[in-house]
Amino acid sequence: LGGKSITIASMAKGAGMIGPNMATMLALVLTDAAIAPADAQKMLTEVADESFNCISVEGHTSTNDTLLLLASGAAGGPPLAGAQLRPFQRVLQEVCIELACQIPADGEGATHLIAIEVTGCASRDDARCIAQTIANSPLVKTAVLGGDPNWGRIVSAAGYAEVPFDPREVNLRVNGHLLYEHGAPVKFDAPTVSRAIKENHETKIALSVGRGPGACRFWTSDLTVEYVRFNADYST
Amino acid sequence: LGGKSITIASMAKGAGMIGPNMATMLALVLTDAAIAPADAQKMLTEVADESFNCISVEGHTSTNDTLLLLASGAAGGPPLAGAQLRPFQRVLQEVCIELACQIPADGEGATHLIAIEVTGCASRDDARCIAQTIANSPLVKTAVLGGDPNWGRIVSAAGYAEVPFDPREVNLRVNGHLLYEHGAPVKFDAPTVSRAIKENHETKIALSVGRGPGACRFWTSDLTVEYVRFNADYST
Repeated sequence: LGGKSITIASMAKGAGMIGPNMATMLALVLTDAAIAPADAQKMLTEVADESFNCISVEGHTSTNDTLLLLASGAAGGPPLAGAQLRPFQRVLQEVCIELACQIPADGEGATHLIAIEVTGCASRDDARCIAQTIANSPLVKTAVLGGDPNWGRIVSAAGYAEVPFDPREVNLRVNGHLLYEHGAPVKFDAPTVSRAIKENHETKIALSVGRGPGACRFWTSDLTVEYVRFNADYST
Repeated sequence: LGGKSITIASMAKGAGMIGPNMATMLALVLTDAAIAPADAQKMLTEVADESFNCISVEGHTSTNDTLLLLASGAAGGPPLAGAQLRPFQRVLQEVCIELACQIPADGEGATHLIAIEVTGCASRDDARCIAQTIANSPLVKTAVLGGDPNWGRIVSAAGYAEVPFDPREVNLRVNGHLLYEHGAPVKFDAPTVSRAIKENHETKIALSVGRGPGACRFWTSDLTVEYVRFNADYST
């Protein structure tokens, strides 16, 4: 950018008491770019909303979260400005999403990272509300643990998110396999989809609920026996 | 009532996919009272809001719930009216709360019924929102399973319910033991409170957050290894 090579480094700590609005989490992003504080804050706030505020482990929001961006300016030159900010923010978002996803992937007792993409809503807020409701359903989380392609648990969680949609417009794919189309389950090879869930660390849930432009990606952990044991046995 | 002896009988079926707005639940209340349909519907709606809509197992709202009140009039006399409706509704509410509580008490894998009472809010809606947020926290549920008098998990769940309150006004009792007062933990005998949780099937959480008139009671299950096993192994 502006003839300078710029580096971004980052680190975060998880991985229980994780719910949106951040988490019991310390995340730190370092760069040698020169950035004015107001620009850095604005970019980080927007990026956090697409990354650290779109993850959960069990959905219990913590009292103390920190995401810091430190920009030393050691790369040289004047602070990034104008059109230079956009490519920086794009890479900053990639870094923050990658780091945020590592938290539920490494969640207490987790065996799967669950990546939920909701599309076709009227707004991003609507899509986020549906995605977060699916993410925080213990029935969805245990279905993924068990390798169960349980479209009913996913679609019904979407249904109680309090976002209106036309059920006939709902389509669902799990790890690329179509399970549900135009509001009804389709014939699919359950053992194949089950194997696709069991054999991959990441389970992709793609739900579309209409034709609107609103979309959101949200990431969570599955719910396991080890999560329960850890949090029942751990005393303060 | 009106010189007649009136009987109420009831039954319900649970006990997974239980979240407010009813549940995968069939509940039926029978009475030989004579009641006009409009009065019966109004009473049942009000009572459901204090009973079946204040329970959860894992918080996943089901697509299909039914609560019916059948009034045969076999007790004789004209339909209950005016001042007679209030005592009938009071008993109907007792019956429905008793029946509703049996659902999380018998929830999938549950070892504890958790009874949460939130008081001191500006409104019942505020109190219900806090109570439901505490009820649906997997960290609170696993703390009860483990007999852990973990005030931090309960108070922090109240804190993310998005209902404003003054933290200095917060008091918390678990099974009658004061754990937290005026916004800070107090000295208490942790082994005694832990034993009180472990040795009772019901755990009572009483949280006051201010001096307002709004209060709500909400009931849920603890979260156990058996819940996870059941819902991971159960396939559709």
